[in-house]
Amino acid sequence: MKVRLLKKVKVGISNRHVHLTSEVYNQLFTAPLTKKRDLTQIGDFAANETLTLKTEKGMIENARIIGPFRSYNQIEISKSDARKLGLCPPVRKSGDLENSETITLVGEKGELTLHNACILAERHIHINPRDAKEWNVEDGDIVQVRIDGDRSGVLDAHVKVSEKGVLAFHIDTDEANAVLLNNDEEVEVLL
Amino acid sequence: MKVRLLKKVKVGISNRHVHLTSEVYNQLFTAPLTKKRDLTQIGDFAANETLTLKTEKGMIENARIIGPFRSYNQIEISKSDARKLGLCPPVRKSGDLENSETITLVGEKGELTLHNACILAERHIHINPRDAKEWNVEDGDIVQVRIDGDRSGVLDAHVKVSEKGVLAFHIDTDEANAVLLNNDEEVEVLL
Repeated sequence: MKVRLLKKVKVGISNRHVHLTSEVYNQLFTAPLTKKRDLTQIGDFAANETLTLKTEKGMIENARIIGPFRSYNQIEISKSDARKLGLCPPVRKSGDLENSETITLVGEKGELTLHNACILAERHIHINPRDAKEWNVEDGDIVQVRIDGDRSGVLDAHVKVSEKGVLAFHIDTDEANAVLLNNDEEVEVLL
Repeated sequence: MKVRLLKKVKVGISNRHVHLTSEVYNQLFTAPLTKKRDLTQIGDFAANETLTLKTEKGMIENARIIGPFRSYNQIEISKSDARKLGLCPPVRKSGDLENSETITLVGEKGELTLHNACILAERHIHINPRDAKEWNVEDGDIVQVRIDGDRSGVLDAHVKVSEKGVLAFHIDTDEANAVLLNNDEEVEVLL
């Protein structure tokens, strides 16, 4: 019988959010991007600035921009958001945007339609290289996360190793609602 | 090594809905309940009549009544509905309503506040006694449902054996969005 290591990880729930290049930001806003609060991952922050997400079918206001600026524009929404907007975004890792969805961003200065920009985020565990070595996992590996409680099960998640990675299991609001997880709750990873 | 039987079951996604006694229905509507379409479970039907769900925090329109009338009033919503309404309903089997949530129903004739009436539905598999025997499961057993695709995992589900049960894996809209399942899609049950 294989003995499985049990490791604990805290849950981080991502609401819909927007990553932008500085060029696109400056087409949508006059004033500079400002920090509202730091996020768990080192360097990342929730900005005070928000956008409206718009399609032919609908709109969602107050989608928060996450800083700092990136080399690509990426809008991460939930499947229920996607239904409201009439979109069918693929499930992707960050930065993997080929053949993803088209969406219009409405900012303070105007609006801009971005192609290959909107995705559903793939569930993942952030981890730094030291912890990854201890866990015996590599970047891109799939691990199983045990969910207890009234809506129990096991969810597959890919491992995202980065130097600044802070251990966290990232899911979106649909996933959190489906299995009744809360922010900062601990779950077990079956290794 | 234990060899697991694989059985297939079709997915049925339940949107928010309302089961009522005839007494409560008649307090809310003038005309009789009418059938819009039959549902998969024998005898159950979606009615043409809908209600508004109301709390101090918000409201959700067009919650459909499911017939026929029952001996209890039960409003089944998703966790994301619950957030909009400011409720915290427990996860329950049908009819297990003790200490569940309070909600106000607004019908054509007026409104009515029901206590111990609002729940999140527990994931379940409907099955008839012949199939249950073949599967070697009993009413109330917990089985594992394998989810493939881009948001894979295994979800626990309880087995609900009834004479009129038609084989189906029932989940709500949050659960369907979280693991990207569609109505009538087939999933595997690990026995």
